[in-house]
Amino acid sequence: MKPLLDYLKQQNMSLFTDFYELTMCAAYFDSQKFEPATFDLFIRRLPENRSFFLITGLEDALHYLQSITFTEEHIVYLKKQGFKEDFLNYLRNFKFTGEVWAMPEGTVAFPNEPLIRVSAPIIEAQLVETFLLNTVNLQTMIATKAARVVDAAQGKPVIEFGLRREPGIDGGVKVARSSYIAGCQGTSNVLAGMVYDIPVFGTMAHSFIMSYPKEIDAFRAFVKTFPDKSTLLIDTYDEVAGVQKAVLIAKELEKNGVRLSGVRLDSGDLAQISKKTRKLLDAHGLSFVKIFASGDLDEYAISELLQKNAPIDSFGVGTKMGTSADRPFLDGVYKLCETQTVAGDFLATMKLSEGKNTLPGRKQVYRQTDFDGTLKKDIIALSDEVVEGTPLLVKVIDKGELVYDLPSVKQIRENAKENLLKLPKPLRQLVGTHVYPVELSQKLQDLIKKVKTRLTNTEINQNSC
Amino acid sequence: MKPLLDYLKQQNMSLFTDFYELTMCAAYFDSQKFEPATFDLFIRRLPENRSFFLITGLEDALHYLQSITFTEEHIVYLKKQGFKEDFLNYLRNFKFTGEVWAMPEGTVAFPNEPLIRVSAPIIEAQLVETFLLNTVNLQTMIATKAARVVDAAQGKPVIEFGLRREPGIDGGVKVARSSYIAGCQGTSNVLAGMVYDIPVFGTMAHSFIMSYPKEIDAFRAFVKTFPDKSTLLIDTYDEVAGVQKAVLIAKELEKNGVRLSGVRLDSGDLAQISKKTRKLLDAHGLSFVKIFASGDLDEYAISELLQKNAPIDSFGVGTKMGTSADRPFLDGVYKLCETQTVAGDFLATMKLSEGKNTLPGRKQVYRQTDFDGTLKKDIIALSDEVVEGTPLLVKVIDKGELVYDLPSVKQIRENAKENLLKLPKPLRQLVGTHVYPVELSQKLQDLIKKVKTRLTNTEINQNSC
Repeated sequence: MKPLLDYLKQQNMSLFTDFYELTMCAAYFDSQKFEPATFDLFIRRLPENRSFFLITGLEDALHYLQSITFTEEHIVYLKKQGFKEDFLNYLRNFKFTGEVWAMPEGTVAFPNEPLIRVSAPIIEAQLVETFLLNTVNLQTMIATKAARVVDAAQGKPVIEFGLRREPGIDGGVKVARSSYIAGCQGTSNVLAGMVYDIPVFGTMAHSFIMSYPKEIDAFRAFVKTFPDKSTLLIDTYDEVAGVQKAVLIAKELEKNGVRLSGVRLDSGDLAQISKKTRKLLDAHGLSFVKIFASGDLDEYAISELLQKNAPIDSFGVGTKMGTSADRPFLDGVYKLCETQTVAGDFLATMKLSEGKNTLPGRKQVYRQTDFDGTLKKDIIALSDEVVEGTPLLVKVIDKGELVYDLPSVKQIRENAKENLLKLPKPLRQLVGTHVYPVELSQKLQDLIKKVKTRLTNTEINQNSC
Repeated sequence: MKPLLDYLKQQNMSLFTDFYELTMCAAYFDSQKFEPATFDLFIRRLPENRSFFLITGLEDALHYLQSITFTEEHIVYLKKQGFKEDFLNYLRNFKFTGEVWAMPEGTVAFPNEPLIRVSAPIIEAQLVETFLLNTVNLQTMIATKAARVVDAAQGKPVIEFGLRREPGIDGGVKVARSSYIAGCQGTSNVLAGMVYDIPVFGTMAHSFIMSYPKEIDAFRAFVKTFPDKSTLLIDTYDEVAGVQKAVLIAKELEKNGVRLSGVRLDSGDLAQISKKTRKLLDAHGLSFVKIFASGDLDEYAISELLQKNAPIDSFGVGTKMGTSADRPFLDGVYKLCETQTVAGDFLATMKLSEGKNTLPGRKQVYRQTDFDGTLKKDIIALSDEVVEGTPLLVKVIDKGELVYDLPSVKQIRENAKENLLKLPKPLRQLVGTHVYPVELSQKLQDLIKKVKTRLTNTEINQNSC
């Protein structure tokens, strides 16, 4: 098991980076540029039909920052790519020595708010860009999507079921983790269950039914092994015939004092079939047998089923949640906001590119709430300002060392639940985007003007170079 | 490095499975059901705007099948999940002993064609479902998408650039591999470069520019380190001012007999800006300086840019290719098609569920081509039929042992290139779906009728149980 666990702890992920991080670092090195710089990781905009982000991914980011080292195998490979010996020697001794502030996992956040702020000698701060983005983009995207699915289910349990179509090994495990944090009851993913202590669930596949001479033989075989926790998949051949056989099984179990847990529907018109199924079960005194539904579900489909009063007790949600299918990426970026001159002065900076400009300076996010805890507004301010509200970024790494107690996945899930409850209702609508107020402090606004003027003068006006 | 490489070779992925695979296996075990069964892995339907699949993922599937073992850590965890001691003992000695036929990576294929066919004692064949689907779904989805992007670029190089928004660690590495197989020139992903021997590329980020007091200082620092292979990012502040500075740099380099490689555009109206940039470069005698463009590109955007005669020499394509953003999943499934009775007779089977039925029996796919090699039609037939055409499924595992020489990624890329060239032109259109003829042999059609009748009689008619 060790190799996988090591991997999940992000050992040896030093080369999981875009090549340009390394070419830039080599150029910084040649210029002997070791001054500290600060980068913000933030998400530019909300996807359609989203009004907030549920932040996850910090644990992996921290494991990664704690464990970057370049092995001789890495060095040999990089040498072949043309890097020079003195830079490779620098990498041989590489260790992340910076300071990191971040929003804890399970925080709700909004566009342009720094989620992670990294201050370190620029080579170190630059090098870690790709990994941090990769991990926060994926995990936050899934947590945000899953929170919507859980909302749509109105308290009925949702199980994450999408491993077969989730993107790869790491992706599959992280989808399970983020979905659970967002409020799912558990996952079908056994590995994620073991690694993150997430409840695992499963029923049976159509193949199980088909492998027996008759459907009822398959049902009997399954309940023999799991008498008190069987959910019978009834739609392999015909769902009405299937539920009739489930009734027979339930009656056989009852004779032994055992109750059939449930039946599962996985195809066809789930609203209509679930009603037929409920009726048949109830007519045989089996009102305790639960109906579990799956098959192409997402927040929109679940919402529609519940509007039609489909008597479904819980949902298995796969592909569309596990890939965030309606919007399979987030616009997370990692941008330089402050450098230091050789003389030691801090110098705020920003991008002016069309549609892609950024916020200068080292920043903090303050959150103001109503008397009942409901979120009122956020203020992005400079980190040394005094602003009303709760600061959202906490120090997680100091001088390269972890100074933050990593919460368990269950604690993060509790944290997320509390934070989601504090969101104003309109932000949790499934359709449309409600804009939550995120203001910039006066000092930050002043800084933006100042930096813009400076950069326009040095970089754009004709006499600049 | 070992843990990651071990991981990439899919060691210890035994628990990377849906829980129901294990509950079904436990029930099979309790029924002492060890007869062989055959499953087909296939994709139900083409996503919008696709007319073929480019198959990848077999290497990981084979590594996985070769390496499934349950460690004591797995067993302890499964015991906690309620599995009984005799089944756990069975797992302790688990080894995949079956026979596998598959289409080599780089094959083009169509809906309902078996891509991988697994015959093994049913517990073994069932258990491997989730991993096989996960790996083939992701990798084939990306290869199929990337083939479209490469087509759209009409011979201009495409570099896969999306690591920061690709789904996780395994996902990011596999996207690089599949994109390269599909015809991309390389990747920004250094780890994928090292593991799979894929060319790596990179330029510089806006942060690099911003970290220097002036843009031109950043350019000078970079070309100092990489004089003969610098691509300068010119749009951090203003692209016209940026290209003017790139001209200055190119002139400085020329004095030392070195040519600037290129400039990079990453925002704004790429068609318009690339024309301005080309004009400015040419006006200064710098026609050898290439223009590299990136920023929100996919096959549709590239096609539009080339229609507008944008003078772009190569493309960096990220998020939308690396997540197959217009359709971020494939409908790959793994279905039982044949079982064996206790008496030893083979029994073909199929699903009858609405919209989800399957093809019974052990099958082979035959491909017929025109005199010039162009694909004419495919025939799905029973594996023991004699049918005109080239059989696409080859035996890759026999009695649990690999009997197939794994090609290098470069060989797979060559194979893919050849196969893509043989596709009828309409199948490579970017918009719309062209249906390629896939027929069922007469014997397979007869078998379908027979199995349908048998299952309808036993399972659906009232007197069935």
